Amino acid sequence: MDGLTWVNIEKPTSRETDWLAENYHFHPLDLDDCLSRRQRPKIDEYEEYVFVVLHFPLFSWEARVTVPSQVSIFIGKDYLITLHDGMLKPLVKLFRDCQLHEEARRAFLKTSGFLLYRITDRLVDYCLPITYKIMENLERVEDEIFATKGRGTVIELSILRRDIISYRRVIWPMRAVLGSLEQKIEKFTAEDMEVFWGDLVDHVDKIWDTLDECKEIVEGLKDTNDSLYSHRTNEVIRILTVISTIMLPLTLVASIYGMNINLPGDDNDLSFLVILIIMFVVIGIMLAFFRHRRWV
Amino acid sequence: MDGLTWVNIEKPTSRETDWLAENYHFHPLDLDDCLSRRQRPKIDEYEEYVFVVLHFPLFSWEARVTVPSQVSIFIGKDYLITLHDGMLKPLVKLFRDCQLHEEARRAFLKTSGFLLYRITDRLVDYCLPITYKIMENLERVEDEIFATKGRGTVIELSILRRDIISYRRVIWPMRAVLGSLEQKIEKFTAEDMEVFWGDLVDHVDKIWDTLDECKEIVEGLKDTNDSLYSHRTNEVIRILTVISTIMLPLTLVASIYGMNINLPGDDNDLSFLVILIIMFVVIGIMLAFFRHRRWV
Amino acid sequence: MDGLTWVNIEKPTSRETDWLAENYHFHPLDLDDCLSRRQRPKIDEYEEYVFVVLHFPLFSWEARVTVPSQVSIFIGKDYLITLHDGMLKPLVKLFRDCQLHEEARRAFLKTSGFLLYRITDRLVDYCLPITYKIMENLERVEDEIFATKGRGTVIELSILRRDIISYRRVIWPMRAVLGSLEQKIEKFTAEDMEVFWGDLVDHVDKIWDTLDECKEIVEGLKDTNDSLYSHRTNEVIRILTVISTIMLPLTLVASIYGMNINLPGDDNDLSFLVILIIMFVVIGIMLAFFRHRRWV
Amino acid sequence: MDGLTWVNIEKPTSRETDWLAENYHFHPLDLDDCLSRRQRPKIDEYEEYVFVVLHFPLFSWEARVTVPSQVSIFIGKDYLITLHDGMLKPLVKLFRDCQLHEEARRAFLKTSGFLLYRITDRLVDYCLPITYKIMENLERVEDEIFATKGRGTVIELSILRRDIISYRRVIWPMRAVLGSLEQKIEKFTAEDMEVFWGDLVDHVDKIWDTLDECKEIVEGLKDTNDSLYSHRTNEVIRILTVISTIMLPLTLVASIYGMNINLPGDDNDLSFLVILIIMFVVIGIMLAFFRHRRWV
Amino acid sequence: MDGLTWVNIEKPTSRETDWLAENYHFHPLDLDDCLSRRQRPKIDEYEEYVFVVLHFPLFSWEARVTVPSQVSIFIGKDYLITLHDGMLKPLVKLFRDCQLHEEARRAFLKTSGFLLYRITDRLVDYCLPITYKIMENLERVEDEIFATKGRGTVIELSILRRDIISYRRVIWPMRAVLGSLEQKIEKFTAEDMEVFWGDLVDHVDKIWDTLDECKEIVEGLKDTNDSLYSHRTNEVIRILTVISTIMLPLTLVASIYGMNINLPGDDNDLSFLVILIIMFVVIGIMLAFFRHRRWV
Repeated sequence: MDGLTWVNIEKPTSRETDWLAENYHFHPLDLDDCLSRRQRPKIDEYEEYVFVVLHFPLFSWEARVTVPSQVSIFIGKDYLITLHDGMLKPLVKLFRDCQLHEEARRAFLKTSGFLLYRITDRLVDYCLPITYKIMENLERVEDEIFATKGRGTVIELSILRRDIISYRRVIWPMRAVLGSLEQKIEKFTAEDMEVFWGDLVDHVDKIWDTLDECKEIVEGLKDTNDSLYSHRTNEVIRILTVISTIMLPLTLVASIYGMNINLPGDDNDLSFLVILIIMFVVIGIMLAFFRHRRWV
Repeated sequence: MDGLTWVNIEKPTSRETDWLAENYHFHPLDLDDCLSRRQRPKIDEYEEYVFVVLHFPLFSWEARVTVPSQVSIFIGKDYLITLHDGMLKPLVKLFRDCQLHEEARRAFLKTSGFLLYRITDRLVDYCLPITYKIMENLERVEDEIFATKGRGTVIELSILRRDIISYRRVIWPMRAVLGSLEQKIEKFTAEDMEVFWGDLVDHVDKIWDTLDECKEIVEGLKDTNDSLYSHRTNEVIRILTVISTIMLPLTLVASIYGMNINLPGDDNDLSFLVILIIMFVVIGIMLAFFRHRRWV
Repeated sequence: MDGLTWVNIEKPTSRETDWLAENYHFHPLDLDDCLSRRQRPKIDEYEEYVFVVLHFPLFSWEARVTVPSQVSIFIGKDYLITLHDGMLKPLVKLFRDCQLHEEARRAFLKTSGFLLYRITDRLVDYCLPITYKIMENLERVEDEIFATKGRGTVIELSILRRDIISYRRVIWPMRAVLGSLEQKIEKFTAEDMEVFWGDLVDHVDKIWDTLDECKEIVEGLKDTNDSLYSHRTNEVIRILTVISTIMLPLTLVASIYGMNINLPGDDNDLSFLVILIIMFVVIGIMLAFFRHRRWV
Repeated sequence: MDGLTWVNIEKPTSRETDWLAENYHFHPLDLDDCLSRRQRPKIDEYEEYVFVVLHFPLFSWEARVTVPSQVSIFIGKDYLITLHDGMLKPLVKLFRDCQLHEEARRAFLKTSGFLLYRITDRLVDYCLPITYKIMENLERVEDEIFATKGRGTVIELSILRRDIISYRRVIWPMRAVLGSLEQKIEKFTAEDMEVFWGDLVDHVDKIWDTLDECKEIVEGLKDTNDSLYSHRTNEVIRILTVISTIMLPLTLVASIYGMNINLPGDDNDLSFLVILIIMFVVIGIMLAFFRHRRWV
Repeated sequence: MDGLTWVNIEKPTSRETDWLAENYHFHPLDLDDCLSRRQRPKIDEYEEYVFVVLHFPLFSWEARVTVPSQVSIFIGKDYLITLHDGMLKPLVKLFRDCQLHEEARRAFLKTSGFLLYRITDRLVDYCLPITYKIMENLERVEDEIFATKGRGTVIELSILRRDIISYRRVIWPMRAVLGSLEQKIEKFTAEDMEVFWGDLVDHVDKIWDTLDECKEIVEGLKDTNDSLYSHRTNEVIRILTVISTIMLPLTLVASIYGMNINLPGDDNDLSFLVILIIMFVVIGIMLAFFRHRRWV
């Protein structure tokens, strides 16, 4: 509380960064980075302040894929400035709570380092359910695969895989950044926060582990799906072949005796029976052949 | 014995952790971790005690997959507190033995460090047969694949692969934790336990090696299965093609002479023979073609 | 400005390197490297100067693949010599600007180290849009795959993959070189450029991350495409089998009654009806069989 | 010689280890490890002795796979104790030579460290021909694949791959153990053996390299085999399609003129010729279509 | 020159190594290594001399695969002894030049370290065109794949892949050896050769990078080839299905009216027209079905 200011800027434009440039002595490159969408998570340490870029996963419903949502943070002795695009609900909610409720302010606005921990913790906690949701989706798709549902499953599997790839790319650089963050902002924290930050890093590692598992599972499911298709195609072709190889010779025999020429025994009353017997012999030979090949 | 207390809490709830918070000065984050199911194996070292989270593989019969079963351990000078969900039979049995038998107490309750070793050793030893069971399953599936049993094999292979993936994910973080555990709890052990812990780490490494081998084998088996399907489909289609390409032209010839129009030689007694000869020539050409392509 | 010379040599030949050898005391191996096209990015540090070979990705329209475009740089206290093949537009443009405009010269020609940073920065920035273009292409191909467009998609996917492989090979060695460049040319820079170079390395890392993601996505798309083909083939064969297995037995029945021999009931007026009924029974049995197999 | 004792125990049981426990002061865990079959290669260093567990590959003819064969070794100042299951012929032969021939004893029984080197060297040398045998098998299978021999090749490839996986798993942990063995047993060696052990480690590395190459080759061969099947299936289906699409329309034409109704021109002598011409036109159109698609 | 002797032994046998053993005090293991064909590249450092085993890739025309060609080198203060099998043309040519031409001797025979550099440099340079040849072959195969040439392409791809695997295995251990060679033979060199050896290592790294790229490309091409086959098979089957599903029902209708029983309207002149109309309706329905499925 004592002089700690939290400035929260949603959807920052050059006007906001100009204002920051005037009031605080931030490096121009950092201010540029707040506006650019093509950043990597990183920590830039200066004497007076630390500039942190964090990325959190955000599921984009249009693209059906996880995209990184950037939070740029300037942390100084008595201020914390967050710039983001307002899509991360936990952060928006936390700020509103602090605006409205005296008690929230008392709980969170202790030191700038403590506040940063609480914000990061909230946003990391927010990731866990998303990760477990992916795991659940995988299990649902697995059931669909075993029920051989078809084309829809392939596309769903593909979209899930794509999402896991993108999600992993968001978390990957965050692990290094969060692992070294505690040390870099130590000077802005009153109490010893090491255990807390360690716990937070554990959570991120857990997310990473889960995503790694998801990746292996999704690749395994893809293989299973392909194998099942292979098996199914093989089955169908086998039936086709059995039917064709029985029917075609019989039809040939019938066709031969359908020719409009002088056929041996064509006015004999027993001919029909003889031909039927020939046909059954053909069927028998074919079935014996298929049994030998273990097709029926 | 001398003052060493083993507190074993099955299925801990907030009531139990509240009790712990009152009687011991544990970090609140650690107590939270005991209740959370979304932890990673880890060691948190404090001056008075060490908090250890261990995960052991447990085969879930409903999900047909290995899931981590968590054991949270607080170890201090004269106490060892274990919290778990009661699913790990060796741990439950060990505690009951200590409750019932004087001699078990004398054997295990020496120092808190020694007790922790015995518990961990039991639980790790418990994993080895599970691992070898997977290996056996792989060998059984391999036999099934070579006997081309079909769809069931694909699904079984998929479930096995899924299980190996999950199992590996349980063991992976345990290796790092168990590798550094001895050093961290040294102060709670009277004798030198290095050789024992080293032996235990060797066992975990052995499990990891075996799982690695299982992973490679299961991928190899999947490939073999797919190749065999491919080969089988190819075989079946070849037979289909051979039969069709022989029968279809013959049927055509017969059909032509079945037309109700004036055919050349339709009242000649030799026509039937001539047509049969034509048919055999067609068969001969076809077979020569197949031999040339090495299909028959 | 003060004595800083920027010598820019496009499409260097041995005549140019001979001229350099006369006027500057460069190591003959370095001069050879300027002419050779088979270099790796590298930094050779000497007392008087630093020799840097940088590679930037250039999309070759004929080969439809990204190829490395080499820039060889000699940097000394008061000179910067760049040798390249004139294909990198930003570099060509930057030099022309410096030739024509006094203000450009004032902005860029401060120290040799600063000039090198500006050149490298321009060329790295030039890569970002290329990278994002690849990402867009991947998304377009993904849409095409889901719409099962066919052969063209396979080839496009293959060309994209090839391009990503080559692009990665250009960026990979650049990361190490750019990461250590700042330190090596420090002596030729007046101000502290660490933040700037760090920012540039971040951009290269970002490109690398994106390419890594692209690589995983392109492999995933290939798998999806193959699975969709598998599924489609399976579908088509199933239809073929359903039609054949219904039509072939019916044709057989008709053929049998087309034989020119004495058939049972061949002058009975109800025969036609009886045969039709037999045919419908056959169709019914077949459909029941297919329903049982869940094919229709 | 001077007091050096080599105790060789084949198929050790608890009786033998009890005897060892009585006569030497070995750690009980080590004696347990001699009997257990589920060990990893390792070195346990004690003040008085060093306990080494080595694994060597042994091809099991029943399982058609390489399995690890364990040699447990206690090495002290004046003794070397080897425990194994008697399956490793070079070791058995070496011991018998030492038993029977004075000159062999003189050559090998110098110091315990030297003896250990000679034993290990023999056993490693024994692995090389096995490794090259695998390479030869791969080359034979490659020839079979190019000759498209069929189902047998798939199974052979699968067994080879399985064997390479298991073999690698035996060698992998051995590299680390053998690499550090020399240092640990230095005190039991009179002369400087560094060059000799280095040579031995080189041989193991060579085996590892070869196995790595084998692994890549076997995966490549599997891919080639699958591609060839794919190609073959494609070929066969193409032929089937060409024949069917030519024969089916012709048969239809013939069938239409086989109907027992009033057909246009059914008593015209030229009808047969006209129909044949129609048929050839159909064949022509079909062939043109196939040529257009590049199928024939 | 001053006392520097270059002994070049082609196809060494035990006679040559015996001669070396007599005249120089080389370690017997090293002399063994010169004769053995199962070595790894390595450097053995002794006080008096350094023993180097280098492997260079050599394309074997019979096996159509790259094999390692070994050069064993003893380097001392005033001598350099090379032993090889005479297959590496640049080395043979270099030695012959030194034998015949005074000027070559003056250029190369400066110090033993310098001579070793020149030999190694020649042999490494010799590798570059081989590597680029592989790249060109890949591009040729890529064109063939896009032109769907068939079986030959699969085999060529397989052989290329095999060659890349073997080539990589030759270069892989060479990187480590060449990287540390300069330091080990420093004492036998007068001038500072660091830049030169660095350049040489760069070339080997370049070869490695290119081979890595080749490996990824060849795997990509294999995938593309398989996808194209998949697509092609799908196409062919689709055509087959379209033709069959149109022709079979029509043939059935014709066959029914070809039965030798009393058919409804079999003496009606309009029957033929009615049946043709039925047939066209069937064709129409089928085509509508195919359009619905987007098959035509």
